[in-house]
Amino acid sequence: MRNFKITISYDGTGFNGWQLQPDVRTVQGVIEDGLSGIFGHRARVIASGRTDTGVHALGQVINVRTGSSIPCDGLQQTMNSIFTPEISTIGVEEVGPDFHARYMAKSKKYVYIFDISEMVSPFMARYVLHVRGGLDIRAMRQCARYLLGEHDFTSFMGAGSSVKTTTRRIVFSDILDYDGRILFIIEGTGFLRHMVRNIAGTLILAGKGKIEPTDMIDILEKRDRAIAGPTAPPHGLYLAEVYY
Amino acid sequence: MRNFKITISYDGTGFNGWQLQPDVRTVQGVIEDGLSGIFGHRARVIASGRTDTGVHALGQVINVRTGSSIPCDGLQQTMNSIFTPEISTIGVEEVGPDFHARYMAKSKKYVYIFDISEMVSPFMARYVLHVRGGLDIRAMRQCARYLLGEHDFTSFMGAGSSVKTTTRRIVFSDILDYDGRILFIIEGTGFLRHMVRNIAGTLILAGKGKIEPTDMIDILEKRDRAIAGPTAPPHGLYLAEVYY
Repeated sequence: MRNFKITISYDGTGFNGWQLQPDVRTVQGVIEDGLSGIFGHRARVIASGRTDTGVHALGQVINVRTGSSIPCDGLQQTMNSIFTPEISTIGVEEVGPDFHARYMAKSKKYVYIFDISEMVSPFMARYVLHVRGGLDIRAMRQCARYLLGEHDFTSFMGAGSSVKTTTRRIVFSDILDYDGRILFIIEGTGFLRHMVRNIAGTLILAGKGKIEPTDMIDILEKRDRAIAGPTAPPHGLYLAEVYY
Repeated sequence: MRNFKITISYDGTGFNGWQLQPDVRTVQGVIEDGLSGIFGHRARVIASGRTDTGVHALGQVINVRTGSSIPCDGLQQTMNSIFTPEISTIGVEEVGPDFHARYMAKSKKYVYIFDISEMVSPFMARYVLHVRGGLDIRAMRQCARYLLGEHDFTSFMGAGSSVKTTTRRIVFSDILDYDGRILFIIEGTGFLRHMVRNIAGTLILAGKGKIEPTDMIDILEKRDRAIAGPTAPPHGLYLAEVYY
């Protein structure tokens, strides 16, 4: 049995998220159907984690086991011809039998893109969050940096989650200003449900002057979803990279 | 009665083309409905020309008459808040009563974007035509330049057209190589149905070495749709600018 580690990028717009569900189109469903055709047996794909409906991926990592003898470059080419244009297969490598895309992920990096230009091009509108009236980048940056280290992120956890612990460790959290776009980049050992989008929504409040950057400390300490900002829309969010 | 000249950009992906039709979503339909709400009376919009289903616009020009006293910048802002994100209103100006977006257009410029990179990002896939295996840019450029001047474009006219004359004058036709993208830029006094897409399909044949650049001369002279290339897909095409 061979085990492939596959890195993919996808436009989340046309999918009901990553996870396989009956009667709706999901990234996992499309990929499993495609790989089943390629391998000649039912393929079961494991991802580093789910992405919500509408969330994009620049570098999602998956793994899949097969008895097929297809070479890595042939698999990449075939996947690219089957899944074009919404899913790009960026890399395929054969890994040891123990590699597991979810369990072995050491950290994940997400990027949330805010666009503060007066008008967003219709061609970018699915891929950035348009924020009118500007954002205070310094306030957002200060706010984002309070997230560094180990914290209880209950205030940023979406409803309906059941997790063993709400503590997560953030190793990178910063704001980059890039040509009219403001990028919130966060890397951590793990993320709770909607956590990045809930943080992004809170950063908007700081960027709009509706909260002080130091309020982030309180928000974390209170462990209360109600005092943090709203959930930012999915289409500004990208799963950027997974580290093993 | 005031007359507004309005320049808009739109992502054609989600529309059944420009022209109003029953039971389907068209750019004209969405804009007329929106403007009717803004003006408080049924608005009738005239465009410089139709765009096909899936074709984009960077600078489509429309005009609309109204008794409303809304200022230009207020109209632009309101349009942008109503039509976001698929349609951006780039400019609004009040013009004389005789301005007519279609009749007074002196020339129009279209851009067709080919992407010859090995993999197209899923985030660009709706906005460029991905061509695998490379294209011979010099051959395409030579081919494109034969279109300059006045020609009978019957070989590039889509079926089902009824026009007085199939002669059109092309004032600019060239290929630009831009960072892995190949741009076909064509400006003319008018275009027949599917003309730019049919030319783009023929340029691909030249770029692939399936026809010689000089074959373009024959194709024009024969006035036979069957000997030109296939119709290139709509999603690589942009109505870029309209000149008055």
